[in-house]
Amino acid sequence: MKEIQIGLIGAGTVGGGVVKLLDQKGSYFRDNLGIPLRLARIADKAANRFTELPVGNAVCTDNASDIINDPDIDIVIELVGGTTFAKDLIIAALSKGKHVITANKALIAEYGPTIFELAEKSGVSVLFEASVGGGMPVIKTIRESLVGNDITSVKTIINGTCNYILTQMSDKGLLFDTALKKAQKSGYAEADPTLDIGGGDSGHKVAIMASLIYGGYVPLTKIYIEGISNISKEDIESARQLQCTIRLLGIIRKAPGEDCVDVRVHPTMIHKNHILASVRDVFNAVLLEGSAVGPTLLYGRGAGELPTASSVVSDIIDIARNITAGVPRRIPMNYYRLSNELKIKPIADIVSRYYLCFWVSDKPKVLASIATILGNYSISISSVLQQESTEESCVPVIMLTHKAVEKNVQEALAEIETMDFVKKKTHLIRIAGRTY
Amino acid sequence: MKEIQIGLIGAGTVGGGVVKLLDQKGSYFRDNLGIPLRLARIADKAANRFTELPVGNAVCTDNASDIINDPDIDIVIELVGGTTFAKDLIIAALSKGKHVITANKALIAEYGPTIFELAEKSGVSVLFEASVGGGMPVIKTIRESLVGNDITSVKTIINGTCNYILTQMSDKGLLFDTALKKAQKSGYAEADPTLDIGGGDSGHKVAIMASLIYGGYVPLTKIYIEGISNISKEDIESARQLQCTIRLLGIIRKAPGEDCVDVRVHPTMIHKNHILASVRDVFNAVLLEGSAVGPTLLYGRGAGELPTASSVVSDIIDIARNITAGVPRRIPMNYYRLSNELKIKPIADIVSRYYLCFWVSDKPKVLASIATILGNYSISISSVLQQESTEESCVPVIMLTHKAVEKNVQEALAEIETMDFVKKKTHLIRIAGRTY
Repeated sequence: MKEIQIGLIGAGTVGGGVVKLLDQKGSYFRDNLGIPLRLARIADKAANRFTELPVGNAVCTDNASDIINDPDIDIVIELVGGTTFAKDLIIAALSKGKHVITANKALIAEYGPTIFELAEKSGVSVLFEASVGGGMPVIKTIRESLVGNDITSVKTIINGTCNYILTQMSDKGLLFDTALKKAQKSGYAEADPTLDIGGGDSGHKVAIMASLIYGGYVPLTKIYIEGISNISKEDIESARQLQCTIRLLGIIRKAPGEDCVDVRVHPTMIHKNHILASVRDVFNAVLLEGSAVGPTLLYGRGAGELPTASSVVSDIIDIARNITAGVPRRIPMNYYRLSNELKIKPIADIVSRYYLCFWVSDKPKVLASIATILGNYSISISSVLQQESTEESCVPVIMLTHKAVEKNVQEALAEIETMDFVKKKTHLIRIAGRTY
Repeated sequence: MKEIQIGLIGAGTVGGGVVKLLDQKGSYFRDNLGIPLRLARIADKAANRFTELPVGNAVCTDNASDIINDPDIDIVIELVGGTTFAKDLIIAALSKGKHVITANKALIAEYGPTIFELAEKSGVSVLFEASVGGGMPVIKTIRESLVGNDITSVKTIINGTCNYILTQMSDKGLLFDTALKKAQKSGYAEADPTLDIGGGDSGHKVAIMASLIYGGYVPLTKIYIEGISNISKEDIESARQLQCTIRLLGIIRKAPGEDCVDVRVHPTMIHKNHILASVRDVFNAVLLEGSAVGPTLLYGRGAGELPTASSVVSDIIDIARNITAGVPRRIPMNYYRLSNELKIKPIADIVSRYYLCFWVSDKPKVLASIATILGNYSISISSVLQQESTEESCVPVIMLTHKAVEKNVQEALAEIETMDFVKKKTHLIRIAGRTY
């Protein structure tokens, strides 16, 4: 049987993991699954990476074009990252009729339609299981296992850095900055953590999921994204008192009959009995609500060398099974097209319950003033919580609302913040609904 | 494009769900996925079922042979249950070169190798996603998504009836019998609940998983299976005091270098922070530990009309994609053969921590006597718990052990039970190790 030849571009963390897994499992794939793979070429600018990896007899180069231009290569694995060089590579590989595997969430989120259209034309597959949720089979579950369902909602913890920081703040009472430094020290956060803690990374992944689920392109700029850097000690403590915990959630919802999709990323209060509350530290989870299956959760490591490599390898085997069976691909690549841009629900239109933490002077009638303004905007309060103050000049007053329209809440807050008893910016955290 | 013709045998709960899902999603499959399906024939002994279902223009019959003998049928779905008639049907269908989909766990667990061998010979697929974990993609995740991993352990809550009963006992303080009656009233337990509460159903599913993971046949008779009917109010209360909860776990483990696989089903104490402790009521979960991905959990509804039908439909689309692509199948059927019988570790050889609840007369020196005997068998005690007695003549004394060999524990218990201060059968519950 003809060997299936693989070219790997990028031998960093994930690429190194792929080299290791192919080395470990290569004989199992050949002897037990009947799939003979050969890691034929590896390209990386840093030559020292080759010496640290079990590259076998792969030809190592610093020139990615060697892989693209090798007519014997069947599958190109792009693990370079970024949306410029990586995009050119993938387009070149597809143009040459090669299958492509990538873990590049930014690229798929931004240029998915272009890439998939080219793959469709070239009669090859682009697989990207590793782009969402590391080792968890998120893409396969959405595209294959839940194919008989309308997926009505997704709630997901999809960034391990943020989840680690929030868990540390909650368990150890750390402030955000301290927890971030600890995450960096443990290798769970980058030196520049902006993309993680700002929610952008979660946004990429949520955009990919929403695109696959609803078969349309989700422009990143239309998604409401809020990170975790404003979460305070008081927010964490209030959550605890309310039997809740704070997680950075990606949310995707489509109400029956509505023409727009609610896609957003923001810190969210969830009840401690909610299944997502048990997702701790760097773990990720995706809770999909299907019309037939009901709630289904995937949980696991969402990043890291071997978990992510595990998904790349599952994509390799998927493509190799097609090649071995003599078919270019089984699942069409027309997941979503630029022309089919999904209508995204503006954040102003969502309906949610809210946690509000006002920082006010400790004077009479303040509570009544706030409640009156909220009432003017049809926002009704479900409970009020008093907290010990850590500041001298002001105290936190915490209110939970019943369901309200975000626009009303934002307008009410804007009005409340003009009052002279308000001493600091109000914290707003949305509260998740149902528990599973 | 030629329609793919489906014959459904058994239009009960799950079969009815399949009819409904195909009715709901048929046009989506045809128009969006390019997969034209036709539910051509349905067989069931109870003709009234046809009138209650959206059967469209499917030919309805009480004779399953009509389906087997129809040369136009591409896929036969067996949802009859049992291991006699169902087995004959499947063998007949495979012999006629038809693909087969089944949700029949007992059949796959007992006759998997025979069925798969015939499918291999006939060049068709047998898919059985619905046999394990209802709507959760357990089989696909093991066979496809984690293909780059050695799966080193599985811990699973795979029977909703038992999990509902245990959750009710724990949350509501119900006795086992009361919780069982409540489960029956809610439709979560059969009139004859033996297969569920005795652990047999979990055993079938665990046998299938172990077979797939280790590529060998697991004889059901070799698996240690213990049900939940002996769990007492005192056990539940002790678990609570120990920050634990009791779940019926299916466990599969293979230590590196060991030649035998540890496969068993029994009530297990798990810490309340363990991810499996948050699996409540009828929900199921499968926690797979992969060499590359680390712990990965699937969670969802493990039974019921539509969740199970969702998995059947995903199998239909999987086979239909092969047919559309012009390949008989992509994944070989030789998962495991009768000739490759896995060596199962005897329960006597396992090493675990243990919860022991002795019922003894409230007299001096009893504790010392028990501790001495345990010590003689190299069992060391990590803690002792006193409980209020619900009985007049005796009190429960609870001991937790450090890790010990099961054989030693059983022998020690046998010796302790000969003592005249022991008034009732000792309860033993194994304690799960690591938390995730």
